[in-house]
Amino acid sequence: MRPSGRKFNQLREISIEPSILKHAEGSCIVKFGNTHVICSASIDESVPRFLKGRGNGWVTAEYGMLPRSTKERMQRESSNGKQGGRTLEIQRLIGRSMRAAVDLKVLGERQIYIDCDVVNADGGTRTAAITGSYVALHLAIRTMMDKKIIRTNPLIAQVAAISCGIYKGKAVLDLDYAEDSAAEVDANFVFNQKGNLIEIQGTGEESDFTTEQLLEMLKIASDGCSELFRLQNQVLLQL
Amino acid sequence: MRPSGRKFNQLREISIEPSILKHAEGSCIVKFGNTHVICSASIDESVPRFLKGRGNGWVTAEYGMLPRSTKERMQRESSNGKQGGRTLEIQRLIGRSMRAAVDLKVLGERQIYIDCDVVNADGGTRTAAITGSYVALHLAIRTMMDKKIIRTNPLIAQVAAISCGIYKGKAVLDLDYAEDSAAEVDANFVFNQKGNLIEIQGTGEESDFTTEQLLEMLKIASDGCSELFRLQNQVLLQL
Amino acid sequence: MRPSGRKFNQLREISIEPSILKHAEGSCIVKFGNTHVICSASIDESVPRFLKGRGNGWVTAEYGMLPRSTKERMQRESSNGKQGGRTLEIQRLIGRSMRAAVDLKVLGERQIYIDCDVVNADGGTRTAAITGSYVALHLAIRTMMDKKIIRTNPLIAQVAAISCGIYKGKAVLDLDYAEDSAAEVDANFVFNQKGNLIEIQGTGEESDFTTEQLLEMLKIASDGCSELFRLQNQVLLQL
Amino acid sequence: MRPSGRKFNQLREISIEPSILKHAEGSCIVKFGNTHVICSASIDESVPRFLKGRGNGWVTAEYGMLPRSTKERMQRESSNGKQGGRTLEIQRLIGRSMRAAVDLKVLGERQIYIDCDVVNADGGTRTAAITGSYVALHLAIRTMMDKKIIRTNPLIAQVAAISCGIYKGKAVLDLDYAEDSAAEVDANFVFNQKGNLIEIQGTGEESDFTTEQLLEMLKIASDGCSELFRLQNQVLLQL
Amino acid sequence: MRPSGRKFNQLREISIEPSILKHAEGSCIVKFGNTHVICSASIDESVPRFLKGRGNGWVTAEYGMLPRSTKERMQRESSNGKQGGRTLEIQRLIGRSMRAAVDLKVLGERQIYIDCDVVNADGGTRTAAITGSYVALHLAIRTMMDKKIIRTNPLIAQVAAISCGIYKGKAVLDLDYAEDSAAEVDANFVFNQKGNLIEIQGTGEESDFTTEQLLEMLKIASDGCSELFRLQNQVLLQL
Amino acid sequence: MRPSGRKFNQLREISIEPSILKHAEGSCIVKFGNTHVICSASIDESVPRFLKGRGNGWVTAEYGMLPRSTKERMQRESSNGKQGGRTLEIQRLIGRSMRAAVDLKVLGERQIYIDCDVVNADGGTRTAAITGSYVALHLAIRTMMDKKIIRTNPLIAQVAAISCGIYKGKAVLDLDYAEDSAAEVDANFVFNQKGNLIEIQGTGEESDFTTEQLLEMLKIASDGCSELFRLQNQVLLQL
Repeated sequence: MRPSGRKFNQLREISIEPSILKHAEGSCIVKFGNTHVICSASIDESVPRFLKGRGNGWVTAEYGMLPRSTKERMQRESSNGKQGGRTLEIQRLIGRSMRAAVDLKVLGERQIYIDCDVVNADGGTRTAAITGSYVALHLAIRTMMDKKIIRTNPLIAQVAAISCGIYKGKAVLDLDYAEDSAAEVDANFVFNQKGNLIEIQGTGEESDFTTEQLLEMLKIASDGCSELFRLQNQVLLQL
Repeated sequence: MRPSGRKFNQLREISIEPSILKHAEGSCIVKFGNTHVICSASIDESVPRFLKGRGNGWVTAEYGMLPRSTKERMQRESSNGKQGGRTLEIQRLIGRSMRAAVDLKVLGERQIYIDCDVVNADGGTRTAAITGSYVALHLAIRTMMDKKIIRTNPLIAQVAAISCGIYKGKAVLDLDYAEDSAAEVDANFVFNQKGNLIEIQGTGEESDFTTEQLLEMLKIASDGCSELFRLQNQVLLQL
Repeated sequence: MRPSGRKFNQLREISIEPSILKHAEGSCIVKFGNTHVICSASIDESVPRFLKGRGNGWVTAEYGMLPRSTKERMQRESSNGKQGGRTLEIQRLIGRSMRAAVDLKVLGERQIYIDCDVVNADGGTRTAAITGSYVALHLAIRTMMDKKIIRTNPLIAQVAAISCGIYKGKAVLDLDYAEDSAAEVDANFVFNQKGNLIEIQGTGEESDFTTEQLLEMLKIASDGCSELFRLQNQVLLQL
Repeated sequence: MRPSGRKFNQLREISIEPSILKHAEGSCIVKFGNTHVICSASIDESVPRFLKGRGNGWVTAEYGMLPRSTKERMQRESSNGKQGGRTLEIQRLIGRSMRAAVDLKVLGERQIYIDCDVVNADGGTRTAAITGSYVALHLAIRTMMDKKIIRTNPLIAQVAAISCGIYKGKAVLDLDYAEDSAAEVDANFVFNQKGNLIEIQGTGEESDFTTEQLLEMLKIASDGCSELFRLQNQVLLQL
Repeated sequence: MRPSGRKFNQLREISIEPSILKHAEGSCIVKFGNTHVICSASIDESVPRFLKGRGNGWVTAEYGMLPRSTKERMQRESSNGKQGGRTLEIQRLIGRSMRAAVDLKVLGERQIYIDCDVVNADGGTRTAAITGSYVALHLAIRTMMDKKIIRTNPLIAQVAAISCGIYKGKAVLDLDYAEDSAAEVDANFVFNQKGNLIEIQGTGEESDFTTEQLLEMLKIASDGCSELFRLQNQVLLQL
Repeated sequence: MRPSGRKFNQLREISIEPSILKHAEGSCIVKFGNTHVICSASIDESVPRFLKGRGNGWVTAEYGMLPRSTKERMQRESSNGKQGGRTLEIQRLIGRSMRAAVDLKVLGERQIYIDCDVVNADGGTRTAAITGSYVALHLAIRTMMDKKIIRTNPLIAQVAAISCGIYKGKAVLDLDYAEDSAAEVDANFVFNQKGNLIEIQGTGEESDFTTEQLLEMLKIASDGCSELFRLQNQVLLQL
């Protein structure tokens, strides 16, 4: 029995409200239960130094949490003077996942900045962030097409992510904080719409895990992402 | 004629939605037209070092902007490694304004952390932040009273703030970004519910200003804050 | 009765010794009683990035305190790794005030760096710094004219600043540390030689204040600055 | 055909030279082909703040690269003023992996610091670091037992790690830099001696991957780690 | 022939004005020609962590330059975010030199902070700083004796410093900037009143140097410091 | 009697193993007894900003210690966020010493980066680092000549360094940690192959020292460096 009463393979209530930022080329607020993340995609007509003059584009991401998104107030990373290891790890993951959605050659020598800011945190912020970032990215590219900044659509994949865990010996989907903090194994899966993996990260700090358990998690994660793809499309089609 | 079509002494449409953060003792999102700020108040059962052992409390504030709250994406201060001068200046102002609302002796040796995070910026973020912070602060103190953490209410004043400017030679209230960037003089006023000043800041970088112009601004700011006190109370009474 | 025995509208003894730095284009040490500040103006033949190629100049300021300018030794900001909020706030104020003295178009695409370093602190360092900075700025511009770096004088206003406060219920001028730390209200006024305001900052952290009190302070500040303009001119004319 | 001529499931030549640091409680230099990492384990009789007074121990890790361990000289992170995201990600992984080897309750309120410094880098530095860190950790615990700092051995698992990738469509083991930079999919596996997973990380930035491909990699990684366990034991038994 | 017309073993005009800082326990401004340094000594009733509870005192130093003490304006180290290597090197030298003047056991568990701030720089700032710091230190210890903070005088040596160089093949004393920047060898000597060495630093970046040249410099440095001891005593006796 | 049983003018066992880094243009590991330092020289086809466009080259150095090179684990400077004063002082010394070996005009507009990383520390790391850096530098220049990056050999001197001290009243050579921490005077000497000085640094924090003692140290240091030149050449000739 899960703390939330959900079935082992049941997502929390998911919603995606698009275009909530006045200035961003693409944005949304994504909610996985009580986890709420503002995602935006910003177009920047320059690229990082290492890409200058090659004609290729780039997609990068930054992640932050509002100080009181958490149970105890966290110190603001800007006043702390640096981003923590967890923050850097998550934003690198979001960046890789979004680059998997875009043909960087077709994008051309420009950059898309993804920003994910957590307003309320209740477990699974990174997978919610990826799922919302895809919507923001998609909308930003639509803006670029509408404004004829680019002629060819550089989107090559639809991307979503979900967490799984081994909780009391059993694979469960989309852990909230109560489960997450008690789970033996914690894993995150990023899929594309073909059902193939973009990224997998699994950690058994409290307990090791077997290939069978990994496959159990993989199965319900894959199904969960199918549902997320449906929700993303529902939002993107209605605009 | 103002760009927005408003009268010289007319506020933008103001709304305050309370308790939007799951974990904070007090919170709201305040909207002055297209300027949207999430404000929270967090109780911390310790005080800064310089106050240890004196029995007095403290109220402090931090301010930040989501990278894409602005027309051009701003660099995230946490990745930049420090808070800029404007950020520090604003959060010091918010902190002083909120301390004017609280009897720190009655609060006892604990601290209230105010966090203001701008989601959308269209001028007047600091005055919107102060106006919303008072609501978050009030709710956090209500939480403390309900939980019997304190027995006596430490609130001694109601506080709100509004910007004014000299725009095309005339005093106008609550400038949006279009006016703000073209105004000759820019001023911010923090009032308490008695109509007395808590703080005044006026800058004439583009033009000097006279005592008469200062008094014109002061008059419409005072009236504007009366309206803000009414709106704060409406929200606080309905809870 | 003021701790120093001065009348409510009486300045401390003021002196300005010009050209005390061997290398600077303009410099002085300004003394308001026991508050001593070294001010310099340095010409830099480049401008900040945001102004490149526009033909306009810039004036900016930095402020610091010698570690033992204060009663208790302060930590050196360079060894602390950053400038504090108060420092940034003050140097932004000095920069704005000095820009109000200069036609940046006439200055041309170059920058004047104002540096204010407090040797002894006894209240009112920021207003002493502004008053001294104008002298340093004036001398630096004279150097530029003498060296024919510019042909037209870009000075458009004379600028001075003074602090006021409400001390035991009454407006007083040019507070020293003893008064400053006990005052109910603390305000700083920057004027130009026409008697118009460049900047006003008033804070009532210990007590609110009325429009009448603000006007009282404004009146004695305006008179105090007239005296400061006379002293600045006396120094500038004798060179 | 692999660039190195190795079979798809063949490790590079591996060696582990123990006790190369004069002062460390445990240390080794581990070599996976041309990837050389100095690993040390240091005993610290204090714990991080969040563990104070709970009686539990901690294991943490730090990772660095000599500036010229790489083809192009890298900027030294200490002169750069911060550790990069990749560094933090890797040292967090090493820390989690080593904690999986230790019963933190039995360790008692003390900390073991793992340091991994890359002398030569040719792909797979993080997995070499984990494999070597286990040896350093084991030796440090042996030191603690010998010195009677602890009476019960807190080691609960043997840990090793190896990288795999999909290179030209096929799963290959222990990628060197030439393969790593051309691989479609890059994954790292941390196993314990029971053949169970401690951690899995797989990224398909250049290409997505299927469950079947994941299982292929998992299989050869598991076999590779068996060989690593044998080599670790060979070193540890001869001391 | 020296640029300044001085003899090879002739000091610049030296002056020491004591007690120029209102708050410091000991202070002076020392002038070696156009090199002017404000030195202060501050008593701190705590010691660095590594000395806690041992009963011994400590003397430490910090050094800084006003941004426009130099020909070209230097970036302020506080706004740069760190002290440069040259600054750290110099303040470590000053600290060691002052510790050589004090019996740290007799000083007791407290610390003396030396601050040296260069107002005008024309070569030899570090040796001027040491020479002035001794005066500030001496005065601070006199303050401690007068206030009966300590009963026994902890001063065990008088300390002064001077620079020498090989300029056009010949040893010269107390180089100004014109000589310093053209000298083949640059050296600094710290002596005590017995004529013994506390510290020697000699660098031949432009040219190597022989033992004979070193001894030549040593001789005139020793004589120069005798003169500095006389000047220090003259100042200290008249107070 | 020295703790190590060595004669007063006897070096520790010295060895230099060249070319231990796979990627560096020149490298070695140098051992002075239990002090082991990895030195590398890297060619960089650009120069620091202050040298751009002048046709001259540059040699610079960085120094670091592995966290567990010391008896107690040191905090990693990269995680500490900055290099300490001792580190900066040492790397500036290494840089100056290596520049004395090279004609920067002949080197041409490029830079050689020297990196010294201490693996085991037992006193004298900076002098070992200089002695090893010369070998790395020499090998890197040989690489440049072999690759015809330069046609003329820019080496103008051979450089080595050794420490001396006054230990129990007597001058001794090449102090290990046991002696170093108990010595009254500590000095470092950098010589070229002509027997002339490049740099001298002597500190008497525990005790002053006389010219005679300085000369005693100078004599045995000079003889010690002759031996180091022989060892360097032996290594360089066999390659």
